[in-house]
Amino acid sequence: MAQSVKLAVVRGDGIGPEVVDEALKVLHAVLPDDLVVEETSFSLGASRYLETGDVLTDDDMAALAGHDAILLGAVGGDPRDPRLAGGIIERGLLLKLRFAFDHYVNLRPTTVHPSVASPLADPGAVDFVVVREGTEGPYVGNGGAIRVGTPHEIATEVSLNTAHGVERVVRYAFDLAERRPRKHLTLVHKSNVLVHAGSLWQRTVAAVAGEHPDVTVDYQHVDAVTIHMVREPGRFDVIVTDNLFGDIITDLAGAISGGIGLAASGNINPDGTFPSMFEPVHGSAPDIAGQQVADPTAAVLSVALLLDHLGRADLAASVTQAVEADLASRGTTPRSTAEVGDAIAAAVAARTTTA
Amino acid sequence: MAQSVKLAVVRGDGIGPEVVDEALKVLHAVLPDDLVVEETSFSLGASRYLETGDVLTDDDMAALAGHDAILLGAVGGDPRDPRLAGGIIERGLLLKLRFAFDHYVNLRPTTVHPSVASPLADPGAVDFVVVREGTEGPYVGNGGAIRVGTPHEIATEVSLNTAHGVERVVRYAFDLAERRPRKHLTLVHKSNVLVHAGSLWQRTVAAVAGEHPDVTVDYQHVDAVTIHMVREPGRFDVIVTDNLFGDIITDLAGAISGGIGLAASGNINPDGTFPSMFEPVHGSAPDIAGQQVADPTAAVLSVALLLDHLGRADLAASVTQAVEADLASRGTTPRSTAEVGDAIAAAVAARTTTA
Ligand SMILES: CC(C)[C@H](C(=O)O)[C@@H](O)C(=O)O
Ligand SMILES: CC(C)[C@H](C(=O)O)[C@@H](O)C(=O)O
Repeated sequence: MAQSVKLAVVRGDGIGPEVVDEALKVLHAVLPDDLVVEETSFSLGASRYLETGDVLTDDDMAALAGHDAILLGAVGGDPRDPRLAGGIIERGLLLKLRFAFDHYVNLRPTTVHPSVASPLADPGAVDFVVVREGTEGPYVGNGGAIRVGTPHEIATEVSLNTAHGVERVVRYAFDLAERRPRKHLTLVHKSNVLVHAGSLWQRTVAAVAGEHPDVTVDYQHVDAVTIHMVREPGRFDVIVTDNLFGDIITDLAGAISGGIGLAASGNINPDGTFPSMFEPVHGSAPDIAGQQVADPTAAVLSVALLLDHLGRADLAASVTQAVEADLASRGTTPRSTAEVGDAIAAAVAARTTTA
Repeated sequence: MAQSVKLAVVRGDGIGPEVVDEALKVLHAVLPDDLVVEETSFSLGASRYLETGDVLTDDDMAALAGHDAILLGAVGGDPRDPRLAGGIIERGLLLKLRFAFDHYVNLRPTTVHPSVASPLADPGAVDFVVVREGTEGPYVGNGGAIRVGTPHEIATEVSLNTAHGVERVVRYAFDLAERRPRKHLTLVHKSNVLVHAGSLWQRTVAAVAGEHPDVTVDYQHVDAVTIHMVREPGRFDVIVTDNLFGDIITDLAGAISGGIGLAASGNINPDGTFPSMFEPVHGSAPDIAGQQVADPTAAVLSVALLLDHLGRADLAASVTQAVEADLASRGTTPRSTAEVGDAIAAAVAARTTTA
């Protein structure tokens, strides 16, 4: 019997629609007969908010919750638009989905493709995955301010960390490390300053490490990690870290791997209670929207993460290999967004036919 | 009449004593007759703590407070030593001094010296200064935990931000930008997630910008800044940012500039109420301590920041130029810590005699 998957598609703003179209093109090229994907489009993002005043309604949430997974392009408008100040779209849409759908694993793999120029002189062989916690830390929205606008203003931001929240993401990271050849896990935090949260993370990693005697473990402060990431990124295998530190180091990871245009991510609810969400790490880049110049590769690789999540590692590998083939054959002539999507889709189809 | 300065010298742990000795060698080489530096050594750090149980006593604090400035090598012992867990030296000594002496400006300049290998393929011309806030943010030590060690543990960390604290460091950064040729200031925060603190920083920068019409201003999220720092670090001039973001991006800045062995910092109390403190950004590196292999350049450049702070920009420039000459003439034969110090001191003396 064919597996049937309900996929919610959020094209979003800026370059979102363009890159999602190519991602879906590749998805259709790879789908075998025994996997049926039913797509529903959701019009969400800054444009819709500016038109209707709605960021994400209860109805939207209920409809999204009825799907097996979400593919999201990018959301967010012109950063200088005062109507979008204070991260209203980011928090009201992206973060709301991550929190409401309990996406406690934010999975961000980094590979340096030999054919893609890295800003590093000698990146070496790089292949690591950041497992970023997605539902806690300084992202909980637990801040406030008094005497705003006066010389006596005080603004606070609270990072919340729970044993429950830390343990489940640490377990996920160890399970992942266990399945990888190098079986190495690095905890990244700032335990010499953020001692309470840091201690919880360190004790949790030490405890779970006991159940994984073949996974080697080390710890690095977040500041030091940025140094290693530009000097010797090949040393990392699986990194597990807090929501904010994960945000920062995965942008850096994307940059050294040759650009945020290749960085994919999965916002995963491993329990399957809620739909997981797959999205490129890049933003909506309104300045280049609609020009067919955006690289859809990160969106395509997000489809690979989606397929992997659906239990179809074989199909995910086909997509990844097609992307690698495309990267290897890239010339210096710029291609349109659709041309890149076509090339990857063709490479996928060729592999599928051959196999 | 000669200017007389009381300098507290904290050699500290690991490579601290070695690099401070070279820094003082260079200081003595550059001192003119009209500047007298009286040094007092303080034995502080992990070794002293492990021997005596004292990190920093009230007597230590009172004695340090009686000085005009502090030169610190590095503090911290073996990170795996359980007796030093929880950042006891970092928080009890380094952070305690920064907070008690109201070091609200943590100044960290970054230059890419043409002769020093950068991990970046093409760093270009890089010359920026990070003005990191030093007395607020997530560093205030305002965290806690309940039900520690149980499955119901909750750990919090609170970032405290005040109009007073943000405004004074922002003003300092604008004044600095005003004196630099490019007159550009970049605010780094994460205002789309940490909205209360982010808004305070953004409103403060906007307000002070009004008094500096010739300084151009932009804003970047901390995650995006890591991308720009590896792709186009030359775009930055003055960066002003929060304590934690400053910690992270200055390690990255040190790495791209060819190593944390060259990165100097000043913990400055611009009001002059308390002694300012100058220290290399690097740590105590206990693994290579006592071997005369540490590069003392960051400590020497910290002396340049000290001289600048004492109002002797001329002497600071002599030290910086001597360092640049030394970097330019470095061969491939490794030199000892003392040999590097000797070379820079000789270059300083040569300049001083010629002038
Ligand atoms: C847009 C923003 C809220 C988001 C985050 O901070 O998580 C983004 O930077 C990311 O990494 O997905
Ligand atoms: C040692 C540590 C507490 C310190 C900090 O986090 O400020 C260090 O990393 C620095 O940057 O000076």
